[in-house]
Amino acid sequence: MSTLDILKLAKDSAPTLASANTNQKNAALEAIASLLVQRESEIIAGNKLDIEAGEKNGLSKGLQDRLKLDSKRINALAAAVREIISLPDPIGDSVSGMTLPNGLKLQQVRVPFGVIGVIYEARPNVTIDIAALAIKSGNAVALRGGTAAENTNKVLVQVLQDGLASAGLPANAVQTVDPFGRDGAVEMMQARGLVDVLIPRGSANLIKTVVTESKVPVIETGDGVVHMFLDESADLDMSISLAVNAKVQRPSVCNALETLLVHEASADRLLPKVATALIESGVTLHGCEQTVAIIKGAVPAIEEDWTAEYYSLDLAVKVVSNLDAALEHIAKYSTHHTESIITNDHENAERFLQEVDSAVVMVNASTRFTDGGEFGFGAEVGISTQKLHARGPMGLRELTSSKWLVRGSGQVRS
Amino acid sequence: MSTLDILKLAKDSAPTLASANTNQKNAALEAIASLLVQRESEIIAGNKLDIEAGEKNGLSKGLQDRLKLDSKRINALAAAVREIISLPDPIGDSVSGMTLPNGLKLQQVRVPFGVIGVIYEARPNVTIDIAALAIKSGNAVALRGGTAAENTNKVLVQVLQDGLASAGLPANAVQTVDPFGRDGAVEMMQARGLVDVLIPRGSANLIKTVVTESKVPVIETGDGVVHMFLDESADLDMSISLAVNAKVQRPSVCNALETLLVHEASADRLLPKVATALIESGVTLHGCEQTVAIIKGAVPAIEEDWTAEYYSLDLAVKVVSNLDAALEHIAKYSTHHTESIITNDHENAERFLQEVDSAVVMVNASTRFTDGGEFGFGAEVGISTQKLHARGPMGLRELTSSKWLVRGSGQVRS
Repeated sequence: MSTLDILKLAKDSAPTLASANTNQKNAALEAIASLLVQRESEIIAGNKLDIEAGEKNGLSKGLQDRLKLDSKRINALAAAVREIISLPDPIGDSVSGMTLPNGLKLQQVRVPFGVIGVIYEARPNVTIDIAALAIKSGNAVALRGGTAAENTNKVLVQVLQDGLASAGLPANAVQTVDPFGRDGAVEMMQARGLVDVLIPRGSANLIKTVVTESKVPVIETGDGVVHMFLDESADLDMSISLAVNAKVQRPSVCNALETLLVHEASADRLLPKVATALIESGVTLHGCEQTVAIIKGAVPAIEEDWTAEYYSLDLAVKVVSNLDAALEHIAKYSTHHTESIITNDHENAERFLQEVDSAVVMVNASTRFTDGGEFGFGAEVGISTQKLHARGPMGLRELTSSKWLVRGSGQVRS
Repeated sequence: MSTLDILKLAKDSAPTLASANTNQKNAALEAIASLLVQRESEIIAGNKLDIEAGEKNGLSKGLQDRLKLDSKRINALAAAVREIISLPDPIGDSVSGMTLPNGLKLQQVRVPFGVIGVIYEARPNVTIDIAALAIKSGNAVALRGGTAAENTNKVLVQVLQDGLASAGLPANAVQTVDPFGRDGAVEMMQARGLVDVLIPRGSANLIKTVVTESKVPVIETGDGVVHMFLDESADLDMSISLAVNAKVQRPSVCNALETLLVHEASADRLLPKVATALIESGVTLHGCEQTVAIIKGAVPAIEEDWTAEYYSLDLAVKVVSNLDAALEHIAKYSTHHTESIITNDHENAERFLQEVDSAVVMVNASTRFTDGGEFGFGAEVGISTQKLHARGPMGLRELTSSKWLVRGSGQVRS
């Protein structure tokens, strides 16, 4: 079997999954949730091989932790699948409809894409999350997880396939191209006609490679150089709690704060206390000249700090002369993920909302809220930072396309 | 000035156009409509250069006709711009919104893409149509028309820029990379960060090149190997009028019929009269063995006929054993544009609607209705045959992205 053979299996099974009703799809998901728990020892055995190989290959402690599955985490995977069961099925929903003057009835309905390709790194939870979301939205899925999780994913894909089969749905609707390594990913990127959409999830480098090399349509995700701007009128307490929450609550994710901009006129009022709170939370500040002059603990920033997605307890800090300068800095360095302004000035707030060209633009809120779960989507495919198809957190609805149904009685065009 | 310089001019002007209100954008469009008529002689002079060059270079009569502008056609261009003025402005529309339990107010609003790149062939009307649609939807636009229309487009782009300027909007929001020829198109395809979305319009070859080579997100358009299936229960008169209308009314466009499938059990009842009507309308039938046995005038079909988008008065005809065989043929050869079933069997109609994986699927209607104008969109950017972002006829709404606005009062994530 080649990668193309495997993709063809997915493609051939896609129409059956696309026409499955909600009960069938939920039955498959329930079977998958049960099997995850039942086969715990098998999953952990596979995972142990990956962890051992990781240790041998010098995989970082952080990545080892992401990779590791235990009884508690496997139960969390099953719970995540059951949460997807509880979400409404988007397939068949009417998006729009009208009857033309000639009597033609037009209806635009949601349909699955067909086959979704996903290229991601060694995180077993992504395997289950994405496959469950794909099944719920009637899509077949071809997975390419990181090599470091290969043995774990092999068992998980078996569980997914067995769950589908036990509900009378095609087991082939979940496929992995992991046995082909990087070549599998490259072939997926070329597989026009077999893969309808490709979603890369992971590091900025991985995403960039997929976006620039793929001939299949891609939904770009992640990668957030996220900014917060403390305006002249920003409340001090709010500035402290929002900056700390956005940076510290979970620094390793894409909606965490990376650059703090501070209005010059309020730098003396805000910066010392905001900086103290951040430093007390373990944050290293990389400041511009003016910042370093105000905050003793800050290290001087270099150009790379303005483009850094640290994923760590580091924060770039810059004093700017006004809102215009903040908007300019953001336009230059933002990855168009999430930006937030802290202000009591309504006009500035609305200008920021209007002019910042990002997926999510906030006023007086922590950037950590850019998240499918927080937005009420129940589960998240990723955060789209591109403008085509989906922008911002992507849920089940973003895994669908649409088609027009036209019902006539012999109408011809004149 | 290089192509990149020109794209930067468009990019820099995009925010101003994006924040222009409906009245300003309509004033620019009205100015453009007026200027088109006022500068008729200048436009015709430029067009004359292109027509003369076309004659010299052996441009086909058909393409020369598409290229040619006269007083009547220029007035039609102005009328098309005024029709776009009358369409509702999609920018700022709320797509969805909710207030979270913590009080955060979320609002998803329509925003322009930013800069739309368009690569098309020598049709001056596309220059005006696309630029007017882009302006109305708040988008800057970078155009690459065919070299054969270069002199015409030069004047038209000047008219577009002058119209924008006269309404106080940035003239730079309409740009052409025509002076750089093919290199201009290639650079647009690479210009990530400067071009937000690329729309190719034209031949299957042009579209395929852009789709496979572009590193910028693409909306794939056009290219229709359109099928009609006469089911066992199809009404004879309806079959005749729909087949003739779909093939003959305007054979040179992508929604024209290219392959007629006929249920074996009704071939003797339907085919002779349908074929006679088609032949009397000047259509050449390329038939399968069974078709040729029934219809004397038909020429034997070869494999290429099933993949042909003739754009002419030619039609492939095949007798199939049943609905399943029709669905299989369509799955194999369709370009996922438009397919129609002619039937009196409700179950077959619904199965066809469900199972055919095309942008528009019809029952008892002419395929010629797949059109933005017919769908009530007022004007059309093209017909998307891909599944990402837009599928089927694209109007103003399909030239927009969205962004999430989040208004809070200091909420942090716990």
